[in-house]
Amino acid sequence: MAQRVKPLSGFPEFLPGGRVVEQRVLDVLRATFELHGFAGIQTRAVEPVEQLSRKGEITKEVYVVRRLHAAGSDADELGLHFDLTVPFARYVLENTGHLEFPFRRYQMQPAWRGERPQEGRYREFWQADIDIVGRDTLALHHDTEVVLVMLEALGRLHTELGVPPALMRANNRKLAQGFYTALGVADPLAAIQAVDKLDKVGQDGVRAMLSGQGLSDGQTGKILSLASISAPDASFVGDVLALGVRSDLMDEGLDELAQLVTKVGTRFPGGIVADLKIARGLDYYTGSVFEVELVGMAGIGTVSAGGRYDSLASDGRSTYPGVGISFGVTRTLAPLLSKDALRASRPVPSAVLVAVDDEATRDAADDVAQALRARGVACEVSPNAPAYGKQIRFAERRGIPFVWFGGKQGQVKDIRSGDQVDADAAKWLPPQEDARPRVLGA
Amino acid sequence: MAQRVKPLSGFPEFLPGGRVVEQRVLDVLRATFELHGFAGIQTRAVEPVEQLSRKGEITKEVYVVRRLHAAGSDADELGLHFDLTVPFARYVLENTGHLEFPFRRYQMQPAWRGERPQEGRYREFWQADIDIVGRDTLALHHDTEVVLVMLEALGRLHTELGVPPALMRANNRKLAQGFYTALGVADPLAAIQAVDKLDKVGQDGVRAMLSGQGLSDGQTGKILSLASISAPDASFVGDVLALGVRSDLMDEGLDELAQLVTKVGTRFPGGIVADLKIARGLDYYTGSVFEVELVGMAGIGTVSAGGRYDSLASDGRSTYPGVGISFGVTRTLAPLLSKDALRASRPVPSAVLVAVDDEATRDAADDVAQALRARGVACEVSPNAPAYGKQIRFAERRGIPFVWFGGKQGQVKDIRSGDQVDADAAKWLPPQEDARPRVLGA
Repeated sequence: MAQRVKPLSGFPEFLPGGRVVEQRVLDVLRATFELHGFAGIQTRAVEPVEQLSRKGEITKEVYVVRRLHAAGSDADELGLHFDLTVPFARYVLENTGHLEFPFRRYQMQPAWRGERPQEGRYREFWQADIDIVGRDTLALHHDTEVVLVMLEALGRLHTELGVPPALMRANNRKLAQGFYTALGVADPLAAIQAVDKLDKVGQDGVRAMLSGQGLSDGQTGKILSLASISAPDASFVGDVLALGVRSDLMDEGLDELAQLVTKVGTRFPGGIVADLKIARGLDYYTGSVFEVELVGMAGIGTVSAGGRYDSLASDGRSTYPGVGISFGVTRTLAPLLSKDALRASRPVPSAVLVAVDDEATRDAADDVAQALRARGVACEVSPNAPAYGKQIRFAERRGIPFVWFGGKQGQVKDIRSGDQVDADAAKWLPPQEDARPRVLGA
Repeated sequence: MAQRVKPLSGFPEFLPGGRVVEQRVLDVLRATFELHGFAGIQTRAVEPVEQLSRKGEITKEVYVVRRLHAAGSDADELGLHFDLTVPFARYVLENTGHLEFPFRRYQMQPAWRGERPQEGRYREFWQADIDIVGRDTLALHHDTEVVLVMLEALGRLHTELGVPPALMRANNRKLAQGFYTALGVADPLAAIQAVDKLDKVGQDGVRAMLSGQGLSDGQTGKILSLASISAPDASFVGDVLALGVRSDLMDEGLDELAQLVTKVGTRFPGGIVADLKIARGLDYYTGSVFEVELVGMAGIGTVSAGGRYDSLASDGRSTYPGVGISFGVTRTLAPLLSKDALRASRPVPSAVLVAVDDEATRDAADDVAQALRARGVACEVSPNAPAYGKQIRFAERRGIPFVWFGGKQGQVKDIRSGDQVDADAAKWLPPQEDARPRVLGA
């Protein structure tokens, strides 16, 4: 079928070399999460629309899914999930009798949002989430745990693959909410959502928003002073107390954040900063909140975020408090790939192209390939049998480093150096660094 | 948020233990495909609806995707892909300047069809596809190649994971089409689609359908005789010639099928049968067609299928002939998991639960876990610090085989046998078979 082909804005797809990088990133994340005992799950792509439209802010971005010729009265209106948190909360409720709590899971899948496409925004994007969910209670040390696991994963992406290093900023909703309430702010959540825009609209912008909410200059000044505090350790506590505002809820938040920053700083020095302007827009966070930026890549914005939620899910008998953090795989990789800051050493798995003398002896080449594969050497047989020079150039265009000539007792040529040596297909191995495509940093 | 939770029929989700099995299946498939030089790609979930509605038969099953509050005049009408072939053909056309041909790719993703849910039919299901696509030409030996790669992958699922063994049945469109045309059948494709229903409606049913197409009893008899021929080797050729019908196209098909069965039988004895009733409903196949059943699991039906297509994609200047085969991951696994024919040795990655004496010494337990993870031992720290007996029972419920007590120079207990020994967290390793969850056959 002849086709008109038109890329769809906001739906990034990678060439095979880009996919090598993405797959390695997913492999590193999975390996790290599993080392820490997180079980992998996958949820279906769709949820009932009513579940997706609870948070007013996101409603208009939901993609609704409907059979092409469905009856107008189709009972289940479905939509594509826009994150992995809503489907996970539903999965927990649906399977509560089959899970042990605290339940630790990771989940790596695409999500969809019908946003207006723009730099750094995608309509289809992969997320990698970890969450720990308890039944009725969940100890505070799990906040520290999810932060450490994500920092370890992002650290490995940095050291093993060359992704820029990550810096986590943390805050605590109780701190801000307790502080605002003690200041006499009537709607602390609205104020938090205004402060969340600080990076976008600046101090004057937030001042105007808060004033629009009926706050006095004095209240607004204190709120902006609180938001300006940051420190890589518990020293932020003194700075907050110096503002002269105090409440029990705020003290709880101060204590939780101080513990988090201290413990994370001990295991992962330089990995975390207490930053009191971090707010997160979503309404379900109730304690710790986290945001991660890549150092030197502020343009990409937040690549990972999360926090503590005390009752994301509830089935009437129990509530399920949790803490989690999500990493934006596409959001991080798409810009790094497009500017070649990350690339694959080759776009194909094959380390070897087995040359074919002529079609009558293709079987001999297949025998060589079978012997190589039996010991884990990825290879392919030349699709046709032109002069050797043409077969070598084919390998070169595919990015395959070695070409094999002759039968199982044959010769192998490193086409980069031109070195050609006798080799036995039952024994020869490529150098370790050529066995699989590698990820190369900038 | 309190939620009503209602499973969606046709959208299977697995518990963590089931996901362990699924992930291992995907890992084995990927490893096999990459050994043979297939590059992994992923395509977006959506395609323009006009691309999805070309094949009349499937139109009504397409899921249309639309923003919740989209303007009525939204230009791009999108739908979820119902297989991985249509998006792959589009990906090839879109990236033709960046790919080397023949291009070998594997693709493992979900697809969606709005079918009426019934036993063995899903609305969301994972597929694992391999295809080799050439520019303008593609040698016949690639037909043999994709069959051998899929048989090797399915063979590993059998020997390594306990999936029932696979049997491939093959036919060739040219054979049937040449035979029917030589018989004087006006619309050979319609006749092929009738024969495709043989297993469903039986000989009498097909006879009625062919008669409805205006075929004589003589023609119908020959067609059913042809469909009854099968053999594990090239001996089927003599049986076909004995029917006394002959054409050039048919001879081409006979020759291609004989080559395929002979070569595959040599490398994979017992893996393939020439079965002349295999038709495949889709209209784009032009040569080899394949279907795979699991031995002893006829109830599941076809778990894998594919064939040769000479012009699936074309951009006006070139056509892109290909050959491919698709494995239905969900279709195979969902029934095997639901009847416990495959299960995981445990649903969590953790081999060890590190016990906590009391909350004040949680750091010491974290140190043990860090030392174990540094050498690749998946573990988790007890979420709380009740009496040891309770912590052991928690490990038991999670399926974790070992519990660690004390600091880095501590003791480790195999809770299945009760054996407890001194152990150093910097040296101890679990037995190889306990390092990761294993997949257990029936």
